[in-house]
Amino acid sequence: MTRQLRLALRAYGVGGPGQHSLWKDPRVPKNASIDIDWYIAQAVAAEHARFDALFIVDSQFIDATYPPHYLNRLEPLTLLSAVATHTRNIGLVGTLSSTYNSPFNVARRFASLDHISGGRAGWNVVTSFDTGTSRNYGLDEHLDYATRYGRALEHVQVVRGLWDSYEDDAFPASGDVFLDPSKLHSLDHVGEHFRVDGPLNISRSPQGQPVIFQAGVSEEGRNLAAHVAEGIYAPGGSLADSRAYYSDIKRRAAALGRDPSHVVIFLGAQPVVASTDEEAHRLSREIFEADNDFSRKLAQFGRAFGAHDFSVYDLDAPFPDVAHLAEKSGRTRGASIVSRAATVGLSLRETVLEFTRYQPSPFTGSPSTVASAITSWFSAEAFDGLNVGFRTNDDLSAFVSDVVPLLQKSGLFRTEYAHDTLRGHLGLPIPANRWSVAS
Amino acid sequence: MTRQLRLALRAYGVGGPGQHSLWKDPRVPKNASIDIDWYIAQAVAAEHARFDALFIVDSQFIDATYPPHYLNRLEPLTLLSAVATHTRNIGLVGTLSSTYNSPFNVARRFASLDHISGGRAGWNVVTSFDTGTSRNYGLDEHLDYATRYGRALEHVQVVRGLWDSYEDDAFPASGDVFLDPSKLHSLDHVGEHFRVDGPLNISRSPQGQPVIFQAGVSEEGRNLAAHVAEGIYAPGGSLADSRAYYSDIKRRAAALGRDPSHVVIFLGAQPVVASTDEEAHRLSREIFEADNDFSRKLAQFGRAFGAHDFSVYDLDAPFPDVAHLAEKSGRTRGASIVSRAATVGLSLRETVLEFTRYQPSPFTGSPSTVASAITSWFSAEAFDGLNVGFRTNDDLSAFVSDVVPLLQKSGLFRTEYAHDTLRGHLGLPIPANRWSVAS
Ligand SMILES: Cc1cc2nc3c(=O)[nH]c(=O)nc-3n(C[C@H](O)[C@H](O)[C@H](O)COP(=O)(O)O)c2cc1C
Ligand SMILES: Cc1cc2nc3c(=O)[nH]c(=O)nc-3n(C[C@H](O)[C@H](O)[C@H](O)COP(=O)(O)O)c2cc1C
Repeated sequence: MTRQLRLALRAYGVGGPGQHSLWKDPRVPKNASIDIDWYIAQAVAAEHARFDALFIVDSQFIDATYPPHYLNRLEPLTLLSAVATHTRNIGLVGTLSSTYNSPFNVARRFASLDHISGGRAGWNVVTSFDTGTSRNYGLDEHLDYATRYGRALEHVQVVRGLWDSYEDDAFPASGDVFLDPSKLHSLDHVGEHFRVDGPLNISRSPQGQPVIFQAGVSEEGRNLAAHVAEGIYAPGGSLADSRAYYSDIKRRAAALGRDPSHVVIFLGAQPVVASTDEEAHRLSREIFEADNDFSRKLAQFGRAFGAHDFSVYDLDAPFPDVAHLAEKSGRTRGASIVSRAATVGLSLRETVLEFTRYQPSPFTGSPSTVASAITSWFSAEAFDGLNVGFRTNDDLSAFVSDVVPLLQKSGLFRTEYAHDTLRGHLGLPIPANRWSVAS
Repeated sequence: MTRQLRLALRAYGVGGPGQHSLWKDPRVPKNASIDIDWYIAQAVAAEHARFDALFIVDSQFIDATYPPHYLNRLEPLTLLSAVATHTRNIGLVGTLSSTYNSPFNVARRFASLDHISGGRAGWNVVTSFDTGTSRNYGLDEHLDYATRYGRALEHVQVVRGLWDSYEDDAFPASGDVFLDPSKLHSLDHVGEHFRVDGPLNISRSPQGQPVIFQAGVSEEGRNLAAHVAEGIYAPGGSLADSRAYYSDIKRRAAALGRDPSHVVIFLGAQPVVASTDEEAHRLSREIFEADNDFSRKLAQFGRAFGAHDFSVYDLDAPFPDVAHLAEKSGRTRGASIVSRAATVGLSLRETVLEFTRYQPSPFTGSPSTVASAITSWFSAEAFDGLNVGFRTNDDLSAFVSDVVPLLQKSGLFRTEYAHDTLRGHLGLPIPANRWSVAS
């Protein structure tokens, strides 16, 4: 089968590029990030365009320096459940941290969403980025990488085990027999991080198991992805970076005996589409400039170092010694910043400016430019799909009405849904129940 | 102001009376308990009848002996969030255990539901009944009463604190100012059971704070209710029992300086309505007989003793020495069973039969009989409202079309909604934000 392009819509509240100033745009309701109708409209539009999924990111820590959509956001599963009954086909992927939720509750909530949506639920497993999150959950310190990702893997395994509590034919509901008790199974999991008996109190959902997504690029993150991810939200970057990440993940999955096509890689992207390439680049620059405020950048920059306050340093002295602060939060990004600053001998100001410099999306241009960029990156195996985010409904509409038809014309993207489950859209098999004997 | 009757609909999956055999009723879909359309239809019907709230109970432990709707149930908040966008006025109360959920997650999820529903969310705080629940969350043993209820009180206090993270006017969203940082507050809670810094990452919801319900009748449960409950789900019982419970709760609340009318007591009830009293009693008896299976009763009976397996005992020997097993689970019920068996000298069989004997609902009869029973219990201060459950949509329809109009005619129950929030319906004030200075 030829590879098919996938498209997910990363829902935008008051987020996306230009996130600090976007609320000033008269087309964006000031409370968009907590307005369920705003999300339903996006889901409906994306479903109309035959997207694979609506994707909801998440966080559980803020301070006053965070961008507007972080400050005030709906909880992903209440959001997606409300969206579910207003859509019929589109997948619904919600981000939930394995570090700060118990497996029993996660298993229930996604199984419930899978039933409510008729088989469209996906869980984006993250380990939480912001170190301050720990203090919202009674922990002094964010768990280190090894513990967070060790927990994440075991967490997913437990959740999957709980999803198999009932075999598919556990409820004959005929004669005198509602439940066949031999088809209800405890998990009795005892591991390094969790002890969970089960069974789960909800039947196997339409997808057998909701789809597992993952986002996190460290060695530990890739390892988790290779073991359990069926979808990945990968960060954008250069074509070379994206291809390297793609082949690395597929190789790791294959090495573990998995079919690499069952790990569907979605690259994060913010396409900027306009009638001409020039106009699109002008717009892209304008978006950048609207948010080009140094003190905000400095605060944002601090996130990779545990929301560290960089304003206390001399901006023109050498980049401070903060390598240890990135250890638990954004080690990958933190380490690359620290090493670049040291190698080139940059000041704090220069470092911040370099790492927050203008970098237009590779998908900036006229509809045909954007469609061909998508096509060539896809063909070059930089991704299986894009996880696209926009600033406004106008930007989504432009992409849907001008770019998507070009992708459809060339046969890269579906014109009709062939399935009504997320697994169906992504070409993922329904996992066999671990307790069912092959017949 | 004259007291107004409140009505909540306790959503029925395959539950309610006759719960073990109800799935055989051809009017009930076999998968009703996980069918979101089934719940939406109930919510719409209840809203049409101007009910105050839809009420969702919950549990997180099962074994194969549990009744059908326990075995296979939707998670309450995903359920209610889906219902929210299909209704406009009715309150949405979900049960969540304070024993097995973290305050930060609970606060977020209910605040999110309150935004999604435009101010209709309520949290029914329970400490979890089934002792086996602990083993689904990594604990060897269910917490004892003092710990569970101590945690519950502190949990609610933390959740309320988090709900106040933002003052109401925190987001001017004008000029250059999206957030006024002086109106964002950390909680920095350090208590016996929880340490939570905050702030919560969602703005004050339309109700200021979602409504706090409570269910649990022990001394500790009543104490919790008196401190924090704004609504109570009280167990049904005799008129005398209900009046005693009612006056006890109101007295406790008043003793703590609270306005007793701000603790709205809903009595659990399963009205059985038919064209004549005789027919209703015949139907009530028939429902009882359909589930009159001793071995199932024995299993159900075990729930108050930590899902203890009573089938291992000689049924005709004296009631076994199991008092200690009720200590953590259903102490109130367990103790009354143990003491009755000992006082009268009952065998195990006799005890089970006595505690599961036929006890028709006091609200059984023709529409006028049921309406006058409700009226006289209400006037006698046995409750402020009823939390009614039914077996089938037909039973709900009969109550709504034949009984509710009689309650409306006598002025006891509203004919139109005067509010569009749950607080509005229940006559509860919007809590002042703890950080806002009175102006
Ligand atoms: C593309 C991408 C998207 C992510 N989205 C989220 C998110 O929505 N919420 C979250 O808590 N963490 C998110 N993460 C963070 C990861 O969960 C992880 O905790 C963090 O990146 C540090 O791990 P890493 O070094 O493996 O990437 C995301 C990471 C990546 C790469
Ligand atoms: C009327 C009523 C309804 C209840 N509903 C629930 C429920 O839905 N889920 C739950 O876990 N516990 C429920 N409980 C149990 C309480 O949370 C509590 O854990 C249990 O009853 C033991 O405490 P108690 O002795 O104070 O009642 C309910 C209790 C009562 C009295």
